[in-house]
Amino acid sequence: MIKPKVAVVGYGTIGQRLADGVARQKDMELVGIADVAPTLALRALKEKGMPYDLYCAIPDNISLLEKAGIPVTGTLDDLLKKVDIVLDATSAGIGQKNKETYEKYGLKAIFQGGEKNEVADVFFHGYANYEKGLGKQFLKLTSCNTTGLIRAVDCLDRAVGMEKVAITIIRRVADPGDYHRGLTNALQVDKAPSHQALDLMTIMPHVNATGILVHTPVTHGHIITLVATPKKKITKEEILAQFNKHPRIRVVRLADGFLGNASLFKYARDLGNPRGDMYEIAVWEETIVPSGNDIMFAINIPQEAVVIPETMDAIRASLEMQKDRLGAVGITNKYLGMK
Amino acid sequence: MIKPKVAVVGYGTIGQRLADGVARQKDMELVGIADVAPTLALRALKEKGMPYDLYCAIPDNISLLEKAGIPVTGTLDDLLKKVDIVLDATSAGIGQKNKETYEKYGLKAIFQGGEKNEVADVFFHGYANYEKGLGKQFLKLTSCNTTGLIRAVDCLDRAVGMEKVAITIIRRVADPGDYHRGLTNALQVDKAPSHQALDLMTIMPHVNATGILVHTPVTHGHIITLVATPKKKITKEEILAQFNKHPRIRVVRLADGFLGNASLFKYARDLGNPRGDMYEIAVWEETIVPSGNDIMFAINIPQEAVVIPETMDAIRASLEMQKDRLGAVGITNKYLGMK
Amino acid sequence: MIKPKVAVVGYGTIGQRLADGVARQKDMELVGIADVAPTLALRALKEKGMPYDLYCAIPDNISLLEKAGIPVTGTLDDLLKKVDIVLDATSAGIGQKNKETYEKYGLKAIFQGGEKNEVADVFFHGYANYEKGLGKQFLKLTSCNTTGLIRAVDCLDRAVGMEKVAITIIRRVADPGDYHRGLTNALQVDKAPSHQALDLMTIMPHVNATGILVHTPVTHGHIITLVATPKKKITKEEILAQFNKHPRIRVVRLADGFLGNASLFKYARDLGNPRGDMYEIAVWEETIVPSGNDIMFAINIPQEAVVIPETMDAIRASLEMQKDRLGAVGITNKYLGMK
Amino acid sequence: MIKPKVAVVGYGTIGQRLADGVARQKDMELVGIADVAPTLALRALKEKGMPYDLYCAIPDNISLLEKAGIPVTGTLDDLLKKVDIVLDATSAGIGQKNKETYEKYGLKAIFQGGEKNEVADVFFHGYANYEKGLGKQFLKLTSCNTTGLIRAVDCLDRAVGMEKVAITIIRRVADPGDYHRGLTNALQVDKAPSHQALDLMTIMPHVNATGILVHTPVTHGHIITLVATPKKKITKEEILAQFNKHPRIRVVRLADGFLGNASLFKYARDLGNPRGDMYEIAVWEETIVPSGNDIMFAINIPQEAVVIPETMDAIRASLEMQKDRLGAVGITNKYLGMK
Repeated sequence: MIKPKVAVVGYGTIGQRLADGVARQKDMELVGIADVAPTLALRALKEKGMPYDLYCAIPDNISLLEKAGIPVTGTLDDLLKKVDIVLDATSAGIGQKNKETYEKYGLKAIFQGGEKNEVADVFFHGYANYEKGLGKQFLKLTSCNTTGLIRAVDCLDRAVGMEKVAITIIRRVADPGDYHRGLTNALQVDKAPSHQALDLMTIMPHVNATGILVHTPVTHGHIITLVATPKKKITKEEILAQFNKHPRIRVVRLADGFLGNASLFKYARDLGNPRGDMYEIAVWEETIVPSGNDIMFAINIPQEAVVIPETMDAIRASLEMQKDRLGAVGITNKYLGMK
Repeated sequence: MIKPKVAVVGYGTIGQRLADGVARQKDMELVGIADVAPTLALRALKEKGMPYDLYCAIPDNISLLEKAGIPVTGTLDDLLKKVDIVLDATSAGIGQKNKETYEKYGLKAIFQGGEKNEVADVFFHGYANYEKGLGKQFLKLTSCNTTGLIRAVDCLDRAVGMEKVAITIIRRVADPGDYHRGLTNALQVDKAPSHQALDLMTIMPHVNATGILVHTPVTHGHIITLVATPKKKITKEEILAQFNKHPRIRVVRLADGFLGNASLFKYARDLGNPRGDMYEIAVWEETIVPSGNDIMFAINIPQEAVVIPETMDAIRASLEMQKDRLGAVGITNKYLGMK
Repeated sequence: MIKPKVAVVGYGTIGQRLADGVARQKDMELVGIADVAPTLALRALKEKGMPYDLYCAIPDNISLLEKAGIPVTGTLDDLLKKVDIVLDATSAGIGQKNKETYEKYGLKAIFQGGEKNEVADVFFHGYANYEKGLGKQFLKLTSCNTTGLIRAVDCLDRAVGMEKVAITIIRRVADPGDYHRGLTNALQVDKAPSHQALDLMTIMPHVNATGILVHTPVTHGHIITLVATPKKKITKEEILAQFNKHPRIRVVRLADGFLGNASLFKYARDLGNPRGDMYEIAVWEETIVPSGNDIMFAINIPQEAVVIPETMDAIRASLEMQKDRLGAVGITNKYLGMK
Repeated sequence: MIKPKVAVVGYGTIGQRLADGVARQKDMELVGIADVAPTLALRALKEKGMPYDLYCAIPDNISLLEKAGIPVTGTLDDLLKKVDIVLDATSAGIGQKNKETYEKYGLKAIFQGGEKNEVADVFFHGYANYEKGLGKQFLKLTSCNTTGLIRAVDCLDRAVGMEKVAITIIRRVADPGDYHRGLTNALQVDKAPSHQALDLMTIMPHVNATGILVHTPVTHGHIITLVATPKKKITKEEILAQFNKHPRIRVVRLADGFLGNASLFKYARDLGNPRGDMYEIAVWEETIVPSGNDIMFAINIPQEAVVIPETMDAIRASLEMQKDRLGAVGITNKYLGMK
């Protein structure tokens, strides 16, 4: 088998994890990464001995990187000539500009949630609409919150049908190490409905969704509460059974010491996961309660890593490496070490 | 008219504000306050020139207070002999012990939300069940979150009837100046359903309620999102009309700069309100969205002061100063300067 | 006596407090304030019934203010024609631009610490260099940290002489209610030496100063530690005696419950101070320790209000209302209610 | 060579990292760890497939652990019978109690900084007083702040002699994942002098030290500023040269993106370090400034992992595996992958 060749463009929080994710897929080959300046991420890459080749997207900056001791293999164009597909993890808006270049080289590309939907042929989620991504040239992933949210909603929707969902997103406002954004002793409210609810409806048009988002001054994972209206009654036990068998959902218990988003961050570090990351969303068992015929529960979204599995799925869909939804996600799960 | 004589026992965050609140009621007389040690609140009282007489609830501690330069008028028993009713704002559990003393003196008493419901004859909310408090010896107020929540739910319930409500409480974890509790870079999830939802059902038994509470590391106000199922359809305009005419609800707009709980704290300081407090809950206009026939919106609870108006109402009910619900809350509102 | 007429231009965190401060000076008259848009501060001013007349610095924005229900008395030019001196509390850099207008009207003006030193004829501190401000047209105040720091250093310098000081500024990163800046779960280090140390040397050129500044994610007051080298040995008791008799320094004790910056914020609110403000810096008694012949201690800087007294002093100096340093600061202290 | 057999008692934040550290020492054998309840750390150990054998220090709790699916190899006594030395990382005060048991089995033991100094024969730091630990039965490590602080002070002391040091500790108040302690929007001041300064003098009695500690609501590393008085003048270049050649000190630059403690945490994760840990303290190059003949600079202490290298050194000293200070620390550094 010839492995498809993959490039990661943009080596920030998401890009680093995409590169690691591709490197773990035994049926793909990571050719290299591209970035533009000697960031901490690139300094760390160098200190690790350059496990991935670096290409520089701004040729004039090559000397800047080399002055920092970071070896550069070539330009972005050099990289693009060697690959079949690009994972674009640049800052919001840059992907749209890069698209022209990808088109020039006839490449497929997967964009992240920060880009506008128009950048892509299909707005994609590995579990919810894998089939729509098959063979498409340009896919756009859902954002971290939406990706995790859809995992939970799609899981129950496939079990009993989902009519509507009203979500409250308790959003972490920055990632660990962020100094360019932050909030201090304040909760911040966004205009409703939140884009995550609207995005969910784009991916799952048969579900009505709305939501309110509140930013909170923490860094270790979003928490979302859902008030979900199923098409037929479902018990707490049945919900747990569905979640427990989903490879990208981890059911946890307050009683076991999983007290909040920081417990899950700690646990992923204690597991020895690379970068202390977790791919799974978590559901707290003790938060599942009925509200009449609706059900209410809370999930945790590990914002730095949650989109990695679905992006691997997107490669499989775009390159038609696997036609079958469950087959595709299953291979991703296996290579990423998910149960 | 002979004004009823009131004592405030416990001069912490709530007790200080209860004393200020009673002092503003022209039809009541604040006889004094009681506490047990030279706290910052008492040091500030002294620096202000002792506007309220202090009684010491632990006679052995009088010398401790005097050594700190804080004049003591007498013991708790001395205070209780002079009054008709006590506002007990002691730490959770102490009120239950104090009750015996109040009974000994044949006094009426209002307890705060930290006490168990059994301490009182009735669990009270000025707007929602004023009539139940009439003439009762012992009343217990709802907690800060529940008090503010019920204002909003009762307001809509009286307009169109409310069937059920599912709430997400994004709780501030400590008050400004608290060093005995806190949370750092973590969200903490509580077992569902939250006690606030259960308490709402005790006060408003015809409404089904559930909820999830998440603690956040901030100090300036809880935010609650509600997914409410009305008995008949209600539009955003009708909701706004109801909230706008409620004297204890303030409709605010993100577009005007009210971006979150910290904006409301700042605004109350800029208003020159004593202690920078706000009695009203706030509703963000831009968060009111439909979820099918349900409605969703977000409110802000200024935890330090929100229970003061309803506690004033409770005095009126217990002493039967006013038989009529709207008459009673109206007088409280007038004296507290609410629209 | 004809009272000098004062305008406050810029009604943000500092401007609001300057206006309140001038209004409390019985020998000055606050003619009005100027700003440009319907901020929360102006909405609060309106809700309070417009105790100060508002002038609009951007004529085209008058309709915007009026649409928000905020009455406008005239333009900035209208205001400037009526006054003798301007307190400019606009955002950093705007003061420099406004200076031309002030010059056009032949006005004196006091700028805040955000402006560059070049904007003014003298860089001013009421206690440390009052005489230098006498009769000057343009004065610039030191920033909040520097103002408080100089109070402490000048106090000891006048007592025993000060050779050098090395400071660590543990800076609050935002004010309560700020959403435009913040930091989340991070300490941020600045390039040394900090500008506050350099500024101190500009005001007190006979003292050698350096320092490191670290931003922290809190809103209630900076804390500065000082390692100070006095010209002759000074004991802890002598230090305390000096600080205790300084009207703008408050000696506090951990043992009394003043555990940190948040205790002082709480205490100012409990005192009933307008906006919950405090003009005094605080020194923690239990932090005063020797380091060889040096002394080390920690102070608290209430960043929102600390510069108000020194700005009132600056008016007195610029207008030569008082020739004598101690006479001038004494009158400011009296009107601001400082011991 | 027969490798010494090591047990780790207490598998919390420090214990986990001690176990990992011993496992990386090729000249030691980790026999097992001991703890008492199904913590998240043990649940993670189980999910990783039990790389370390678990012994239960409370026999009655074995069933509790087994019910959680965590296999137990034996009791604490079983473990102690198999080893030569114990690393006690239990909660403060428990080590003192455990000491009797260790004595019963004739074992050597290394305690952590939370225990009282009396627990041990010598208060130990690998770089500063290695020789004092040689052959001793009971050693106590310095705490995280003191360990990192001494690295820097000892480094300069050996170069030019150190007369005195005055430190400001800007302390992180909790570890990532901690829910049992925290601080919200507050800085907290401790009584001076801080214990870290006193501890430094115990280890380095020829240096005079004092300091002030301020707690801050963050989780990713303490920052300490030092005002150090060297015995002879030292330039910034010489300081940098000394720090640059110290294997446990990492010189970093703000200009490279190391903006604060959170940057270092992020960098360690990006390096792929286990648990996202860093063993080195960091010095910010741009903070090194003169204060007369004194020098001032800021260091970062990664509180979770910083004591691991010095604890490995302590094993070498206690068991006399290596007589020579630099030889011993060099082997530790090699096995831990430090430059």
